[in-house]
Amino acid sequence: MSISRRAFLSQTGKVAAAYPAMLALGMLQKAPAHAFDLPGNGNGKRIVILGAGLAGLTAAYELTKLGYQCTILEARNRAGGRCWSIRKGTVHQETDIAPQTATFDSDQYFNAGPSRIPHHHELTMHYCRELGVPIQVYNNVNEATYFFSEGKGPLSNKKIRAREIHNDLRGYTSELLAKAIDQQQIDTALSKEDTQKILEYLRAEGGLDIDKLYKASDRRGFIEAPGAGDKPGKIGDPHRLADIISSGLADPDFYNVAEYTYELQMTMFQAIGGMDNIARAFEQRVGKMIRFGCEVTDILNQPEGVKVIYKDKKGSNELQADLCICTLPLPVLSNIQHNFSSDVSRAIDYVPYMITGKIGLQFKRRFWEEDEQIFGGITHTNNELTQIFYPSYDYLSKKGILLGYYNFHEKAKRVGNLTHTEREKLALEKGSLIHPQYRKEFETSFSVSWHKTPYSMGGWALYTGATRQTNYKSLLQPDKQVYFAGEHTTYLNAWMAGAFESARRTVADIHARVTDQRITYPTATGS
Amino acid sequence: MSISRRAFLSQTGKVAAAYPAMLALGMLQKAPAHAFDLPGNGNGKRIVILGAGLAGLTAAYELTKLGYQCTILEARNRAGGRCWSIRKGTVHQETDIAPQTATFDSDQYFNAGPSRIPHHHELTMHYCRELGVPIQVYNNVNEATYFFSEGKGPLSNKKIRAREIHNDLRGYTSELLAKAIDQQQIDTALSKEDTQKILEYLRAEGGLDIDKLYKASDRRGFIEAPGAGDKPGKIGDPHRLADIISSGLADPDFYNVAEYTYELQMTMFQAIGGMDNIARAFEQRVGKMIRFGCEVTDILNQPEGVKVIYKDKKGSNELQADLCICTLPLPVLSNIQHNFSSDVSRAIDYVPYMITGKIGLQFKRRFWEEDEQIFGGITHTNNELTQIFYPSYDYLSKKGILLGYYNFHEKAKRVGNLTHTEREKLALEKGSLIHPQYRKEFETSFSVSWHKTPYSMGGWALYTGATRQTNYKSLLQPDKQVYFAGEHTTYLNAWMAGAFESARRTVADIHARVTDQRITYPTATGS
Repeated sequence: MSISRRAFLSQTGKVAAAYPAMLALGMLQKAPAHAFDLPGNGNGKRIVILGAGLAGLTAAYELTKLGYQCTILEARNRAGGRCWSIRKGTVHQETDIAPQTATFDSDQYFNAGPSRIPHHHELTMHYCRELGVPIQVYNNVNEATYFFSEGKGPLSNKKIRAREIHNDLRGYTSELLAKAIDQQQIDTALSKEDTQKILEYLRAEGGLDIDKLYKASDRRGFIEAPGAGDKPGKIGDPHRLADIISSGLADPDFYNVAEYTYELQMTMFQAIGGMDNIARAFEQRVGKMIRFGCEVTDILNQPEGVKVIYKDKKGSNELQADLCICTLPLPVLSNIQHNFSSDVSRAIDYVPYMITGKIGLQFKRRFWEEDEQIFGGITHTNNELTQIFYPSYDYLSKKGILLGYYNFHEKAKRVGNLTHTEREKLALEKGSLIHPQYRKEFETSFSVSWHKTPYSMGGWALYTGATRQTNYKSLLQPDKQVYFAGEHTTYLNAWMAGAFESARRTVADIHARVTDQRITYPTATGS
Repeated sequence: MSISRRAFLSQTGKVAAAYPAMLALGMLQKAPAHAFDLPGNGNGKRIVILGAGLAGLTAAYELTKLGYQCTILEARNRAGGRCWSIRKGTVHQETDIAPQTATFDSDQYFNAGPSRIPHHHELTMHYCRELGVPIQVYNNVNEATYFFSEGKGPLSNKKIRAREIHNDLRGYTSELLAKAIDQQQIDTALSKEDTQKILEYLRAEGGLDIDKLYKASDRRGFIEAPGAGDKPGKIGDPHRLADIISSGLADPDFYNVAEYTYELQMTMFQAIGGMDNIARAFEQRVGKMIRFGCEVTDILNQPEGVKVIYKDKKGSNELQADLCICTLPLPVLSNIQHNFSSDVSRAIDYVPYMITGKIGLQFKRRFWEEDEQIFGGITHTNNELTQIFYPSYDYLSKKGILLGYYNFHEKAKRVGNLTHTEREKLALEKGSLIHPQYRKEFETSFSVSWHKTPYSMGGWALYTGATRQTNYKSLLQPDKQVYFAGEHTTYLNAWMAGAFESARRTVADIHARVTDQRITYPTATGS
């Protein structure tokens, strides 16, 4: 490695001063959001990449295009990291319970890790396009799914379509506001004409009647569907506002997380056939660079270059490289020997990761579609399940896998402490309260608790305002020859886009250092 | 035909009296929503069906199962009626302008008629399942699409993401209501505890800050997207409420029709490869019964049976049958000779049909996806276009067809009065205001005005409360040997489900008459 960090920083400073002139001369790269055609060549510089998750795969893919020589060390016997789809034969060993093997039918799967692509995650969409991974809509928003509040209150302990609660709450709150405006009880700071328009808007928004009262609306569905002949359909009465509230259905468990959050707004996507097809597509390009079953034990910056010690079946080995990209999740890295700075070391040890888990339940029959007209989407509960996800693929087919729960924090911790059998029992018991068909139609399950999954040890990095200013920033600069990448080095935590963005950022940084030029990694455009 | 109407009615009365006893004896059919296993056999009774649209095809399909002998007379040289997908080579001749032939690429299409299946239209889903028509999500709700208000006001004449207006309006109205409740300016009729909960709900619903003020929210998107490293993302300021209103963006043109209406709530579907694959699937089963190019000129009830006179290439012909199912749209039927009762005759002549049109625009490049991250969904405008639909299939592929407009009533009438070339010009000019890429990327178009399309002459039947009580009811009973079916005999106007429900209802009626039993056509279950 010919460029020391000191020299690099010094060079960068010089180039920075010359930046406007170089931009004018066309000497600088200002790439559009998708393009990544960096100038110059890595000339075979050796890069060791730790982890064959999406960040590591992407780094290897882009670095190889630029003329680098990459080696990926991967502890598991598969690529993809948390981008992992569970299929027949998948084996999973958590830290303290017996291993399980998936016994799903061969055409069934579920995504244990990322299962959704926001349409505005440009790099995720870009790599699907570039690598030819076909995508389909992930049906995140579905008004036909249920709210199920376990507890007290007249509307608890029964399933209620999301559309009923959504439209009732919208109706009552619009009515309250329209009344307040109408009776000039509040100052809207609007002109008389605009006030009239906002009243009309509220009437439409809330589905209010001509007197601006919320009574009933077909938006909340029918008790008897409209049909042919003398069947106009029959609309039910709205739930009482006080009942909705006292039954917990206006509580945070049921806030519109599934549709309002920027990342969860429609349109969302998934890779057809399993999200790990994205990892597989990368693996097709860079698979030869991956050494599987290699568990890193030491990462050591040398005066020049870096030494990585790892264990494989045969024993301990070491690998020398000019530079290293470490994509290992922080809780994993925390158990690896290193000679990083104290700031980096502190970040590695201090940043918590999400406790989270999922269970896939295969059923003989897609009763949620056949009996209940639920095609994709999420049922929300306030119990341990938190949510039930219906599959957004193979609609109208025979069998299917539901996500029986996808939970977080304390709930995920409690469930994670159970054995696979106990988790299945819990998912079936609680799920049967919503779908009694569970009992008759259930076939087999597979559960993953990410915080107990070796080589992941958590869902994703959880930063606070404070740790963003300290620990996070420590990970953004290379520690001598070691660069950090992965969703934990981004503001896109938990998302595949974080892996992609961080890989590109790191590749740009390394390439700038090696080729001694200033490269500005582009900011993705907003909406 | 052995059973006169009088005898039939008399029989029905007798059976009705015995209904409870027969139900107890298992002699009666009480079918679940999907099942349609009627007892008894039609024993080759001859049924002539007018129109090979979805209602006619379904009637033939179900009657054939029951042992009837069906003939379908179809004026066009294709089946499907309004369920029509435009592909390369499709020829279309409207009443008063030159014919056009579609010059789309062979892998491109758009649905000129129905393009969406609500998840709760059980019969539509049922026939897709039974006939093996694969479906995919029709991405009707997409927060990334635009609102474009032509007119005055600071936010007009520019495209604004739906998510910005949705969340700003939600934010401001939640803030107003929270303030009013907080300051006890209105009586919510809620307990103190519940009032606190509704305030928390409003804070979440509106994305309000800790002081219950609406300031900015990432729900409305980013000016700079969050990314790796030092890119937390940058949120823009909300639009001012007064600006939204004065720019027309709270007007009815932009009400949440696309997501609140029961029929338009997610999940929605479409047949993969074109909605007419549903018609094709029926045609595979009953195609041999269809006589194409046969334009009905007379429908005449006889003392027994019915006589239909029709023209084909060779001249005038007649067909005798025991019973007739007439599925022709009323404006078409209005120009056919018949000897129906004056009530039926009046219904045929008086019920108006929707004036509506669509244009498909093929582009070289899916710029809406590549440049603007719009994958499916609908952009709303207040100009002649009314809306632009982005394709919900073949995401990430090279080319695509946009629906350049889909308009109704007066707007559709004005556009319908233009030639195909003029319509294309209008769609491109107005569309370019939203997507300047139109000019460079446009290739070819195809437009359909349904009210000027022979053998349809309108989009769908438009009933009022008054005509439901008069004209509509006249069409629900057979006029002697002639039964009426089609979406105009249902409360599911404009939807394919109307065709299916009406066909089944008519088949049940006919079968009851022929087999002299009481058959209750099931009411579809509500949600």
